[in-house]
Formats: sequence, structure tokens, C-alpha cells
Amino acid sequence: MKLQLALDRINLEDAKSIAKEAQAYIDIIEVGTSLIKDYGKKSVNFIKENFKDKVILADIKTCDEGEYEFKAAFEAGADIATVMGNAPLGTIEICYEVSRKYNKDIMIDLMETNEDRIEELKKLDDAIFFIHLPKDNKSGNLIDNFNKKSTVYKGIKRIALGGSVKEEMLGDILTINPEILVIGSAITKSNNIELAARKFKEAL
Amino acid sequence: MKLQLALDRINLEDAKSIAKEAQAYIDIIEVGTSLIKDYGKKSVNFIKENFKDKVILADIKTCDEGEYEFKAAFEAGADIATVMGNAPLGTIEICYEVSRKYNKDIMIDLMETNEDRIEELKKLDDAIFFIHLPKDNKSGNLIDNFNKKSTVYKGIKRIALGGSVKEEMLGDILTINPEILVIGSAITKSNNIELAARKFKEAL
Repeated sequence: MKLQLALDRINLEDAKSIAKEAQAYIDIIEVGTSLIKDYGKKSVNFIKENFKDKVILADIKTCDEGEYEFKAAFEAGADIATVMGNAPLGTIEICYEVSRKYNKDIMIDLMETNEDRIEELKKLDDAIFFIHLPKDNKSGNLIDNFNKKSTVYKGIKRIALGGSVKEEMLGDILTINPEILVIGSAITKSNNIELAARKFKEAL
Repeated sequence: MKLQLALDRINLEDAKSIAKEAQAYIDIIEVGTSLIKDYGKKSVNFIKENFKDKVILADIKTCDEGEYEFKAAFEAGADIATVMGNAPLGTIEICYEVSRKYNKDIMIDLMETNEDRIEELKKLDDAIFFIHLPKDNKSGNLIDNFNKKSTVYKGIKRIALGGSVKEEMLGDILTINPEILVIGSAITKSNNIELAARKFKEAL
């Protein structure tokens, strides 16, 4: 299981310093949507330049203009870019094609994506599907919500899981066994970032 | 009817120069999603500084983290910020609250938003509802698509309409009579930007 560190709602220097402290224990660095909307694509470039051996995810949450946005993210140094699962199907398909052309990864964010659409998207079987609790809509918890819809997710090969992940969920997470576990504030807001990252890495 | 000029997929200096040429005939300048994801919120600040007497719309297409994103947009100088109609309901409600606190406007982008949700959102009756063709999914044209769903839109007070608007649609647009008409490339890609903007303004 790969560990993805989500960097959000901080300035670029703090993002770099947090990622430096955690870097020995993480595989993927996520340049969060807030960093992209605050600083633009230079945030992706900045993190890539500083962490050349890490996989960089640009959480651009594309809703439209898929070709332009995905090219921009990959040109800026992203290895993975995100598109909304509830975007127009044409957008997701264009994003997928661009990711194939660049030999990079696409992550489809399943927030507010209905079951029919998820079924339809399963044909993109090398895409990564991100299952998470949105920040603004925390009814239930990640594990319960995943389990409730587990039949819908059946057949998805590559799963990323995240959203208010806490240490006490690790047993359930190991059972689900996603390809990627996304962790944000449980590491970034810890008093000892390195220790927090190491604990997660060791537990997985 | 107000005219909104959408600036997209260009650099900031070109955005400024296009808006300068069109400024006598437009009411709202839209800092497009591509400008925000390319340059961050400084794009909003840059356009506001250069066009202090215009209404500035930041097309941030919020999907989550509503409070953070809407505050950031308004603090950067936006008078209107956008949220996706298919975001979690909690996100839209937070964005609405922030817009009320700042005494600014919220525009809800109805792309891929189902009828039940639209019905639910009508309670936010001073929000602007943006009805458009997404760039990546141009089946039909704006007018036909609007007319097909006109019963769904019934009761919405403030409508913005846009997406591949062409001069020959103006008759139908006058019949629909939205509060705001959003025009992009029909002005920005014209050989004579000022003339193109003037023609639209005079026709409305």
C-alpha cells in the first residue's frame, strides 16, 4: 500500500517543509486543490522540483476543459492528475486519453458520483478511483461509507482511499487494502510530522 | 441583460489587453478556471486591480472546501465566485453563507446537476444559476438544451446563460432574457475585439 501525503491550505514553503519531514515514509505527494487554486500550476512545479524522486499528484479536480487542464498538470510535473467522477463523461474520457499519451496516471474522484456513472467508468480499468469523504460532508466515516457501497466498487482494480483517516481505522484499511492511502491532517497537523508519518508507514 | 466576458486559456497580460479592448461594452469580467488553475488567485487580484469599476467573477468551480475557497476568492477581489451544482450540498450551503457574509454573489454552475438537486437549490433564491454547455460535451446547442429543460429551471430568479454563444442565437437569448449572458471566444477570438463586444452589447 502506498502512502499519499495531502498538502492543503498552507503556503508553499510550509508545504515543502512538511513534505521534507515526512518524505522518508511517503510515496506520493499530493499538491492539494487549495495550493493549486492559491498558487496555480507553479505549486506543482515547485513540489516536483523539490521532490524529484517522489510521485507527484496534482489534485486539480477537473470539471471541464479536460485536455487543457490535464496537459497543464503533466507539463508542470505531475505524475497523477485528478478529474471529478461527476464531470461530463466527455471530460473524463479526454483526461484519460491525455494521461495515456503522457504515460501518466489519472485519478477519478468519486465524490458525489452516482452508481450508474461508477459502473460506466469501470471500463477505464487502469485509472485510479479515489473513494473519500469530502471535507464539507462528513456524514458517517470513511470505513462505514466504503463498506456500505462495497458492491458498487466491486471490479475496480486500483483504489485510493482517504478522508479524515485516523490511526484507529488502520485495521479496517488493511482489510480493504487500497493501492493508495491518502492522509492529510493526521500527518500535516501533527506536532511531530516525521513520527506521525513513520507510524502510518510502519502500520501498513 | 448584463454581458460577462469569459477569459480563458491565455496568459494574464493577454487577458488584460483583451478586457481593455472590450471594457466599454461589458459589465462582468470572468477570470476563467484555466487562469485560476494556471496562476492561482493572483489572477483574480490582477484583473480586479486593472478593472476596478467592473464586476469580477472568479470561476473557481468549487467542489469541496467551500469556506476556504470562497473566502480566498472574495479576499482576492472577486465579486462573484462559482460552486458546482453537483458538489456536496454541504459545500454549496457553506459557499452561500460565505457569500452572504461578504455581501458578494454566488453563482451555482448547473453542469451535470440533476433535477432533484436543482429543485433543492431553488431555496437559495438570490443565488445566480449558471446554465451552459460544458466545453467538453457539446451535444445540441445552448438554446435547444435550455428549452428542453425549461420546466426544471422554472422559478429560478437569477439566470446566467452561456457556452458557445453565437450572434445568430441572440433572438432566442432575448426571449429567454437571462440576467447575465456569458460570452467567451465569440469576443476573445475575434479579429476585432472591441467591435465584437459592441455588437453583442448593442443587440441586447
